[in-house]
Amino acid sequence: MDRRSSNADLSAMEYFFNPRSIALIGVSKDIRKPSGRSLNALLKWNYAGKLYPINPNYTEIHGVKCYPSLLEIPGDVDMVIISIPAQSVLEALQQCIAKKVKAVVLFTSGFSEVGPEGQALQEQVTQLARNNNLRILGPNCVGLVNLSKAVMASFANIVDLKPVYPMSLGFVTQSGAFGTLIFAHAVAAGVGFSSFVSVGNEADTEFSDFLSYLLTTPETKVIGGYLEGAKNGAKFRKAAQDALKVQKPIMIMKVGRTGAGARAASSHTGSLAGDDKIYNAFFQQMGIIRIETLAELTSFVIVHRGGRMPHGNNIGILSISGGAGVMMADKSEGLGLNVPEFTGETRRKLETYLPPFGSAKNPVDLTSAAVAEPEMLGRCLRALVADDNIHMIAVAMGFMPHSAPILAKDIIEIYQSTTKPIALITNVFTVSEVINKAIKSIEDAGVPVIKDHLHAIQALYNLSWYSAKLRRHAEIKKEKPAAHSNKEIGKIINTPDALSEFEAKKILSGYGIPITCEALATSADMAVEAARKIGYPVALKIQSAQITHKTEAGGIKLNVASDAKVRAGFKDVISNAKKYMPEAKIQGVLVQEMLKDGVEVIIGTTKDPVFGQVIMFGLGGIFVEALKDVSFRIAPLSRVDAEEMIGEIKGYSVLQGMRGKPPADINALVDIILKVSRLVTDYGDAIKELDINPLMLFADGAKVADALIIKK
Amino acid sequence: MDRRSSNADLSAMEYFFNPRSIALIGVSKDIRKPSGRSLNALLKWNYAGKLYPINPNYTEIHGVKCYPSLLEIPGDVDMVIISIPAQSVLEALQQCIAKKVKAVVLFTSGFSEVGPEGQALQEQVTQLARNNNLRILGPNCVGLVNLSKAVMASFANIVDLKPVYPMSLGFVTQSGAFGTLIFAHAVAAGVGFSSFVSVGNEADTEFSDFLSYLLTTPETKVIGGYLEGAKNGAKFRKAAQDALKVQKPIMIMKVGRTGAGARAASSHTGSLAGDDKIYNAFFQQMGIIRIETLAELTSFVIVHRGGRMPHGNNIGILSISGGAGVMMADKSEGLGLNVPEFTGETRRKLETYLPPFGSAKNPVDLTSAAVAEPEMLGRCLRALVADDNIHMIAVAMGFMPHSAPILAKDIIEIYQSTTKPIALITNVFTVSEVINKAIKSIEDAGVPVIKDHLHAIQALYNLSWYSAKLRRHAEIKKEKPAAHSNKEIGKIINTPDALSEFEAKKILSGYGIPITCEALATSADMAVEAARKIGYPVALKIQSAQITHKTEAGGIKLNVASDAKVRAGFKDVISNAKKYMPEAKIQGVLVQEMLKDGVEVIIGTTKDPVFGQVIMFGLGGIFVEALKDVSFRIAPLSRVDAEEMIGEIKGYSVLQGMRGKPPADINALVDIILKVSRLVTDYGDAIKELDINPLMLFADGAKVADALIIKK
Repeated sequence: MDRRSSNADLSAMEYFFNPRSIALIGVSKDIRKPSGRSLNALLKWNYAGKLYPINPNYTEIHGVKCYPSLLEIPGDVDMVIISIPAQSVLEALQQCIAKKVKAVVLFTSGFSEVGPEGQALQEQVTQLARNNNLRILGPNCVGLVNLSKAVMASFANIVDLKPVYPMSLGFVTQSGAFGTLIFAHAVAAGVGFSSFVSVGNEADTEFSDFLSYLLTTPETKVIGGYLEGAKNGAKFRKAAQDALKVQKPIMIMKVGRTGAGARAASSHTGSLAGDDKIYNAFFQQMGIIRIETLAELTSFVIVHRGGRMPHGNNIGILSISGGAGVMMADKSEGLGLNVPEFTGETRRKLETYLPPFGSAKNPVDLTSAAVAEPEMLGRCLRALVADDNIHMIAVAMGFMPHSAPILAKDIIEIYQSTTKPIALITNVFTVSEVINKAIKSIEDAGVPVIKDHLHAIQALYNLSWYSAKLRRHAEIKKEKPAAHSNKEIGKIINTPDALSEFEAKKILSGYGIPITCEALATSADMAVEAARKIGYPVALKIQSAQITHKTEAGGIKLNVASDAKVRAGFKDVISNAKKYMPEAKIQGVLVQEMLKDGVEVIIGTTKDPVFGQVIMFGLGGIFVEALKDVSFRIAPLSRVDAEEMIGEIKGYSVLQGMRGKPPADINALVDIILKVSRLVTDYGDAIKELDINPLMLFADGAKVADALIIKK
Repeated sequence: MDRRSSNADLSAMEYFFNPRSIALIGVSKDIRKPSGRSLNALLKWNYAGKLYPINPNYTEIHGVKCYPSLLEIPGDVDMVIISIPAQSVLEALQQCIAKKVKAVVLFTSGFSEVGPEGQALQEQVTQLARNNNLRILGPNCVGLVNLSKAVMASFANIVDLKPVYPMSLGFVTQSGAFGTLIFAHAVAAGVGFSSFVSVGNEADTEFSDFLSYLLTTPETKVIGGYLEGAKNGAKFRKAAQDALKVQKPIMIMKVGRTGAGARAASSHTGSLAGDDKIYNAFFQQMGIIRIETLAELTSFVIVHRGGRMPHGNNIGILSISGGAGVMMADKSEGLGLNVPEFTGETRRKLETYLPPFGSAKNPVDLTSAAVAEPEMLGRCLRALVADDNIHMIAVAMGFMPHSAPILAKDIIEIYQSTTKPIALITNVFTVSEVINKAIKSIEDAGVPVIKDHLHAIQALYNLSWYSAKLRRHAEIKKEKPAAHSNKEIGKIINTPDALSEFEAKKILSGYGIPITCEALATSADMAVEAARKIGYPVALKIQSAQITHKTEAGGIKLNVASDAKVRAGFKDVISNAKKYMPEAKIQGVLVQEMLKDGVEVIIGTTKDPVFGQVIMFGLGGIFVEALKDVSFRIAPLSRVDAEEMIGEIKGYSVLQGMRGKPPADINALVDIILKVSRLVTDYGDAIKELDINPLMLFADGAKVADALIIKK
């Protein structure tokens, strides 16, 4: 059924994937040339809509009537494929606008990728698109294909490959060449594509637009992507959230991990936030599966086909080779799955079924006795399926001509008797009609069959990871919104000057974040009065928007314990600061309570050009400096996000109470992180970087000891 | 040439690989049965020696004369293959001994793998072998093959596979089933085996024996292994050292990572030393490449074939796809290779050769312009080869019929003009005679061709890692031996009682390890005298072999600063200790200098059942407790080992001087680690566990603040 017919309010993207008619500007008779190959493929795979080749030199190409120009086509044209040189593109686009074309696939290169002149030309393309409601894919792309409709709007050689069923993988790529390589590999591995889009220079439409669109196509079950960098973090986040809603996994191969390096930044947070860490945080937060290899994509698609989700992290492993079983168990535990011991009924059953030298532990070692007695596999597999403590199963089995039909029958029956994810690992080296037939019947019955042990485990792990993200997403939806913002804060933030520690803490306090008991003193008398009120000992800290490194400036005295020492200290820090930076505007001296034993943590924010406000968390002091043991999330955060980012750091056990100390107040920490998230969401335009360093975390509550806010 | 003919002193192992004659006890006419399949393969691949099938029911099998018993064979028999039931095995072995057989391949199962009874039978097999100088492979193994001599002494179906050349990979496996799977996969990937050995239950010969043997066979260039656990660490270490000497890489897939868990142990070191960490340390120390996947093995063999070693870690990457190039660069940096920017001449050349939208950075993006202009690849590749700062090169290129011959010619010429390792990554999806021929010519010229981008990078990384281990091995050979042992120490160690801190430190001091200035006091007066000599403040510590947790016992006072306080403290710690453990034998109170600022580190040892004395190093306090950030090496250590284990911890930067502190004295630390290594090597039988915790490390020197030695 044509989905457009049931929906009058067509999204503009629809014309890329379901055009009723396609014109090809710059078409060639030579099928090796871009537009020639596309026309050839449209004909070869029987595209059902109207086709209008455009070339003044021909009257027909491959038996299809050819037009001298777009404007002379009698009917409507939904999509135009353009493959003429860059200098003629603007004119062609003007014609598209005149003809009320909805979508353009622009193969042509020579735009932003070739330098400033091309960049200028590309900006004109963008403007034309935006001003005339024309959607453009590219330029400098290999185009797109929608395989179920034979929309072969691409000049990549993938348009010649025989389609593979089911067509369930939607793929979007920022690299045309590498994307087509992935396509060819995946097809060879038995994975069929619903659609494939090469986004090129993203002059108008971008990567995330296609993610969002593909989510709406019912045939697409998994979305894959090759990404170098997102243009717009908000769009990307929206697409990822929609994907969680409709429960379609997104798997992204993100490259450019190491290139960008750390940024120049004044805050700790800024200097620790590398591009790749922020992408990782984004993927964690949004339930996007980050993949390293193509095999991860293809094996996941195969395991995901059954539509089954594990309800936990426990895997049962059955193998005819003890070695392969142990290897799979290692990989499982290495990734974070549990390989629990079997107990009770399951253990007893397995011990009955297995020979004395088999292993009824997890992984189950069937031993070569399972070759002579093929029914053994079925019996053991049924025992694992019946065990509620096992959430998914990997079965590695060799097929022999005599055993293949029995194994196939058992495996299919058992698979259909349960809703647990099961992956069969088998690889056939010897040519045998009986074995091939048996395996084909297993695949046809919907059982995921993977050739490589480790790929199968990785796929089951990814399924379990994704399934946990879906459960977590359901929790987030139930969360209450964070506290309201305090509008008074705006006054402080919007002063023209840089902010001192005192002001930064006022802002935090305005958001309900607990800070040290303190007062700003502009005279020694005021300092003594404040110290008495706060209670001895106190800290004295110079306050000046110009002096960000107070210790270096000699502007800090700790554990000041008497009136006389406060008086002396007050004078000292002021005179030190004046020496250190004579031009600094000194606001006064902050008199602050000394905090007792607690765990030092750091909470910070930095502004990422793609994702906006990013929150960082880590243990303070040497942990952050020597180990860079920090985690990131993109604001705004949910409570679950804050909990996850705390649990993610390697030194987490320090917060749980080490060396006889009581556990730190994690709830207070979560609250403060959420309040910081709210603050930078409310004032995202004004705040460039923020460091709470340290936040002292106690067994009960927490207090900001020092803070820095850098304005934009 | 038969190597035996040139060497009269044949090693016993030689008979497994080059037997002049083979008898098969329990042979069947059915080629699907173990001994039947072996005989069939020996005939099929034209084994050149004499064959004696033994079976009283036949006079010939497949045209070969059959004997009723081993003893009735007229000539000598070098090797016997046994595949009769377990209960008849001892009798058959007796016949082998009577016949002066040199080597037995024992397929039969039903030994230690089936329980105590089988274990007892296996011990008899072991005794027979040891007492009669008969070498046995197995039992419960799939046998062995030496492909160059067609010694097909295995019943695995791999004996039917067509051999692949060059036959350069020697493989030893503790899992028969998984080993044969690896064999089949590797052959399919174009990797040829020299020999393949399934060691089974290792009743007589073991995994390491075959490693050692394979090193001596000239056709074997790389040794692979599948290992669950080594029987004898010393043999394994010897094999690995020999491998470094003859520069043949060993690659091991070690499984059973997570199963064993931590041991019950009284020391920090013991509780932190898991089996897998110790294996990892051993592999690091011995230059054994630990592999996770089969693809790592096969791609390494292919890249290693050229016999080229990179002289550093810098990789140059050339790719027709920008995306693939970035992905390879990411993978390279992720593994620890450098992807340096090109400068000077190289940069200028690349900019000349590439189109304006290409990238002359590393990775070089040739862009699709390289399809139209295939000479571009050769020009750019030559530029990288000429750059002394680039130590190895990965080239990812697509082949088209028009470009294939040009690319092949260029690549072969360039490869032969240099000694740098180069890997070509290419994968052909379209059927083209021209392309296949071109790629075949490249492979025939010795250029490593890999199908997968990431596998190629992994292989180059492994080559570079191994090459660094070879350089390091050369350094170790130049090291002077460690200091002589102090024989006086034996007296303290060999007392029947457990050791107190005071005694443990005396032992360390005897090995030249600096300890705190201290004295044992048995009265308050002695304590005061000692404290005055040492200088205030001091620490007081209860000394009792029974009290290992002094703090818990209330047996420690720190910063004791006056005569009066020493007197009071002395009484306190003794009365606390008596309350804590009335039966404890109290030696006295240790009066000890208080150490000022330094970095706390921990050095420990534990005794591993396989590898013997294992040394641990880590940062003290929270680092070791919360992060378990420690490294291990097997004693005895070389200086290079000690340096590596210090550099390996994640918190290494703490030792380099953090927060304005001066760097710690790494040389002193290395010396102390070497002395500890020497101590536990000298007294390995007596010392079970040792903890120096903490060692205080200063800018100049170090001192042991507390130590624990647990005897066996």
